[in-house]
Amino acid sequence: MFFSFDGIDGVGKSTQIHLFCDWLVAQGCEVTQCRDPGSSALGEQIRNLLLADDPAMPIHRRAEMLLYMAARAQLVEQIIRPSLERRKVVVSDRYVLANVVYQGHAGQLSLADVRSVGSVTIDGVRPDAVFLLDMPVQLADERLGQQRDRMERQGDAFRQRLRDGFLTEAADDRSIHVVDATRSIDEVHAAICAIASPLLEARR
Amino acid sequence: MFFSFDGIDGVGKSTQIHLFCDWLVAQGCEVTQCRDPGSSALGEQIRNLLLADDPAMPIHRRAEMLLYMAARAQLVEQIIRPSLERRKVVVSDRYVLANVVYQGHAGQLSLADVRSVGSVTIDGVRPDAVFLLDMPVQLADERLGQQRDRMERQGDAFRQRLRDGFLTEAADDRSIHVVDATRSIDEVHAAICAIASPLLEARR
Repeated sequence: MFFSFDGIDGVGKSTQIHLFCDWLVAQGCEVTQCRDPGSSALGEQIRNLLLADDPAMPIHRRAEMLLYMAARAQLVEQIIRPSLERRKVVVSDRYVLANVVYQGHAGQLSLADVRSVGSVTIDGVRPDAVFLLDMPVQLADERLGQQRDRMERQGDAFRQRLRDGFLTEAADDRSIHVVDATRSIDEVHAAICAIASPLLEARR
Repeated sequence: MFFSFDGIDGVGKSTQIHLFCDWLVAQGCEVTQCRDPGSSALGEQIRNLLLADDPAMPIHRRAEMLLYMAARAQLVEQIIRPSLERRKVVVSDRYVLANVVYQGHAGQLSLADVRSVGSVTIDGVRPDAVFLLDMPVQLADERLGQQRDRMERQGDAFRQRLRDGFLTEAADDRSIHVVDATRSIDEVHAAICAIASPLLEARR
């Protein structure tokens, strides 16, 4: 089984991913946790390029999208696909959906372009469930505080387009589960486990 | 006008690109010379990743293709498109054709996948003419000698598939001009100029 987590920054993805992986282990699953972009050696190098925010190294939006895709292709072939073949449960911090929303809905690339490159990139390796942690942008901003990287220093209008884009995608794709992330950490965790449980049971 | 040079390693691309750029300048053209991957700061970083050949950083063929595309998207937006808008003549060492042949014909990716990602990547910026320098693989090998990078240390069968792939593409695309590169440097140069001259005239 393959699960991914997504949503705007500040919604509590990292915390929930940790709790979810612990819960999976407690259910007797072997778990592979990864982050996209990243986890492979190449992916981490690409992640550094993407987050460098160096005025001497501009990154055009189309190049940015393709860099994310390159990191993801490596992640799929080096980590996700082999883990799934060994019947491990894979949990990824972000996946293709993030590109569709960040560069498509909220950026300036066509959705069709991002989707078509995404399809080539993942070569059929799709999450069984995507947990979309959702909350109002202002609340996520407050949680995020002052420590922000290049992606996170976007304006409010951009972040609103992100949230709207995620919700639009969720409305069209039954594998994307919107999780109300304004609740307590334990409540959000319980909601995620309630979605994952029947999927894990069905697979056994 | 936008010209690119391609072909297997050892055919004399670098020499011919230099001579051609000098000739263009002598014709009164403003010339932008670039290499793909490379030329932009991001592109050179990506080039270093691609040529690293580090066993601790495996690069899957699909990730490799996407890295080339990311470098190219940056090259197009930062260098090629602005140069063309300023009516400069752009001369690139390799372009999309190289990916179609290296990862498609000779590698293990589907041609349709490479072409569709390539189309998103270049966003309409296609060469007016591609000079495909062609010679038998064995002759190119002799010229190449012992100094080879990761790409160049491929086996003979692979390099034959490359040559065949280039020629197959040329048969289907009138913008690709096959140039017999077994001749002397001056003869090859003259052949290239004879192809470029009427194209430049037509544009004036």
